[in-house]
Amino acid sequence: MAAKPFAIIAGVGPGTGASVARKFAQAYSVVVLARNPENYDPLVSEINSSGGQALGLSADLSDSTSVKSAFDKISQQYKGSPLAAAVFNSGGGFVRKPFLELTEEEFGNGFKSQGIGAFNFAQHTLPLLQQATGLEHPPTLIFTGATASVRGSANFSAFATGKFALRALAQSLAREFGPKGIHISHVIIDGVIDIPRTKNWANEHEDGKLDPGAIADSYWHLHTQPRTTFGFELDLRPYVEKW
Amino acid sequence: MAAKPFAIIAGVGPGTGASVARKFAQAYSVVVLARNPENYDPLVSEINSSGGQALGLSADLSDSTSVKSAFDKISQQYKGSPLAAAVFNSGGGFVRKPFLELTEEEFGNGFKSQGIGAFNFAQHTLPLLQQATGLEHPPTLIFTGATASVRGSANFSAFATGKFALRALAQSLAREFGPKGIHISHVIIDGVIDIPRTKNWANEHEDGKLDPGAIADSYWHLHTQPRTTFGFELDLRPYVEKW
Amino acid sequence: MAAKPFAIIAGVGPGTGASVARKFAQAYSVVVLARNPENYDPLVSEINSSGGQALGLSADLSDSTSVKSAFDKISQQYKGSPLAAAVFNSGGGFVRKPFLELTEEEFGNGFKSQGIGAFNFAQHTLPLLQQATGLEHPPTLIFTGATASVRGSANFSAFATGKFALRALAQSLAREFGPKGIHISHVIIDGVIDIPRTKNWANEHEDGKLDPGAIADSYWHLHTQPRTTFGFELDLRPYVEKW
Amino acid sequence: MAAKPFAIIAGVGPGTGASVARKFAQAYSVVVLARNPENYDPLVSEINSSGGQALGLSADLSDSTSVKSAFDKISQQYKGSPLAAAVFNSGGGFVRKPFLELTEEEFGNGFKSQGIGAFNFAQHTLPLLQQATGLEHPPTLIFTGATASVRGSANFSAFATGKFALRALAQSLAREFGPKGIHISHVIIDGVIDIPRTKNWANEHEDGKLDPGAIADSYWHLHTQPRTTFGFELDLRPYVEKW
Repeated sequence: MAAKPFAIIAGVGPGTGASVARKFAQAYSVVVLARNPENYDPLVSEINSSGGQALGLSADLSDSTSVKSAFDKISQQYKGSPLAAAVFNSGGGFVRKPFLELTEEEFGNGFKSQGIGAFNFAQHTLPLLQQATGLEHPPTLIFTGATASVRGSANFSAFATGKFALRALAQSLAREFGPKGIHISHVIIDGVIDIPRTKNWANEHEDGKLDPGAIADSYWHLHTQPRTTFGFELDLRPYVEKW
Repeated sequence: MAAKPFAIIAGVGPGTGASVARKFAQAYSVVVLARNPENYDPLVSEINSSGGQALGLSADLSDSTSVKSAFDKISQQYKGSPLAAAVFNSGGGFVRKPFLELTEEEFGNGFKSQGIGAFNFAQHTLPLLQQATGLEHPPTLIFTGATASVRGSANFSAFATGKFALRALAQSLAREFGPKGIHISHVIIDGVIDIPRTKNWANEHEDGKLDPGAIADSYWHLHTQPRTTFGFELDLRPYVEKW
Repeated sequence: MAAKPFAIIAGVGPGTGASVARKFAQAYSVVVLARNPENYDPLVSEINSSGGQALGLSADLSDSTSVKSAFDKISQQYKGSPLAAAVFNSGGGFVRKPFLELTEEEFGNGFKSQGIGAFNFAQHTLPLLQQATGLEHPPTLIFTGATASVRGSANFSAFATGKFALRALAQSLAREFGPKGIHISHVIIDGVIDIPRTKNWANEHEDGKLDPGAIADSYWHLHTQPRTTFGFELDLRPYVEKW
Repeated sequence: MAAKPFAIIAGVGPGTGASVARKFAQAYSVVVLARNPENYDPLVSEINSSGGQALGLSADLSDSTSVKSAFDKISQQYKGSPLAAAVFNSGGGFVRKPFLELTEEEFGNGFKSQGIGAFNFAQHTLPLLQQATGLEHPPTLIFTGATASVRGSANFSAFATGKFALRALAQSLAREFGPKGIHISHVIIDGVIDIPRTKNWANEHEDGKLDPGAIADSYWHLHTQPRTTFGFELDLRPYVEKW
């Protein structure tokens, strides 16, 4: 019997990452990565206790040694299993400050998280995606963007440089790996996501925040597209969002 | 029993329009519009004979009298049924010519087809979408764009002006009707669609053309999104497409 | 002695058009076009009485017969003079209304003014620009855009479709006529222009409106660029503008 | 007598930077920065011997200590002089390679050069620009972009992430410092620049490369705009460039 395909979701907290993991766990074994095990432990338990298969690994994506160590474990654990999908969902590097108050480190953290983090993740997942055989859908690598991916707002230079860089990387990989049959996508999340941390954020509309489950449905839809019809970029926002 | 919701697909030929109609006919009764009944008759028969419900109506979307006449028939026929989705898929107005060889009529046909046609369609469908109740998914209006929606190429001024205008309309409507709960989307089809007419077009890759069925799946996915998480724009292209 | 080159500025009112005419009149004989002679008569007198040469012609750019008649007069008057620059600055087609209150005519006026108007203007000026010899700067055709050229806002569908279409035309012509040595540019005016009509518009900053003279300086700068270094698109806005 | 204003141009080699320095030296005293004195010594001599004033300083913009040291010297030397303009023109971080062959260092160099370099430059120049008084034109900070600022091509991920990040920074600063009267601009250089190193690059057109002098004229034009009419982004390319 062929080994069950697996998916890797990097950047798993209470929002998009966890919902994407739950969704992809309906079809695949999933590996979830986060710096802090607290961020994935409940999710891993939840998936494993409801008939799915999940493995949590601690990794700092901006640290190549840490990433290598995590992928060594993945290679051992999933030897013979094809990698069906990889999702980069890191939310790190956010800081909102007047430019002249930013330290070089704060400024650089946007790129460290979104640029170097995505670089390390892509360096390790693309070879696995290229080797994968026997998949129902084309192997897929999805990057999570934000409003700051297409707009450099005042006081957001650190995060926007990171998110612009991530979008550049996604375009570059789509043009290089698309013709090799790898589906690269970039999803722009334009609005506040409905998670515990944002529950009490003022919003005049009770349903004015993005639903992580619905975001996950879109990621899954992108993954299921045949290579004749690859979607590259999709922007998602609440119906009441100003844009 | 509540009346079955219906969908209206305008611009039905052998490609995207027909596939979208087939897809939406799995959930809804569908009305298909085209200038020439030859373009929808086989499709209507196919859907009706396979358990679905379809009605074909002849209409020239760029002619307000013709559109009004078609929607009068729709109102009679579907009285009491909620309109769940409307898709504008007109491909008209295409001409490829050096600018100085274009007649004013040829140039204007791009906008007549894509701008006025979409205006008439939106004027008639938006009130129905706003009235609809009891739907499973938010009422949806999707516009079909093309490479020329975001790029004015040499010799494509007529088509590009039409498609740029259509995108402007879609953005404008999304910002006005999104907050009213209507889902407005714009899909950029960037490549050749695999239909009988393009079968023999040179392509070094046998699967290098967009699959209308997969395009329809994306339209359906957009339609099913909850209003917390509306997708506005998605670009679709074959994996081997240069962009 | 070689004939003095001339420039044609279409859409001359109290703002950008008049300032561009004054600026270009420092080097060239200028023809100014407007529907209503009231819009150019004072300007023509001003230029002629201050050492320049100006001719005013009444023309409705969206009416090909009217445009042809104006260009017949231009051909007679400027026989033997090279056309150095042409500027399309029509502001017509503006209407701000909820979409469902727009008539087809109101909606279509955006394209009629910005699309057909620009088409007619380009059809008549491009052959003259291509024939021009002995010029100091490459022959130039500049189109005036607006915020609505890149953003379809709620209630602005008529104007935005026109301005998006104009931008598509400009791109298309730049790609076709650039390699022939014609400089095509598109300038996005993002803000309120400081003219008599807007004098009393609320603005918390006394210098928060665009200066038509400074806009004209940018048009002239674009015109003077050599063909090795053509600028295509420039966005101009007041320092306090939100964008 | 008021002290002569000065300008700082960072990233001076044989192309854009040197031409911008020559141009701005016609009005201002200029400081030119480059890592290697070989890159600015001939230029400094040329400007000083032809009636201008130039100072060359060695600095690695991506190294905050090196930048601080250079600006300490500038502060001493130009005490009392207002900073009229600053130009970031670093071309570093370029590498063209298949993604999987890139090292983390190579990938990160794009951001190190274009992101961190621009951060350090802006951190030191913005306070000086804000303090400047008695200037003829608004204080100005211009960033040099490239094709890769708006397009992530295959094999260009390192450079594109850097240039996308630089554009994000420029937007962010324009929105924060524009309202404070500082003019922030971003110029997209889309094509090969005509410098000694590219002299023998194949080009079917003898004038198919960008002229650094003409680029400098555009930078100067942007600098001279009043704050009512700030240009943010301008794209420059040879007339024969495909885009």
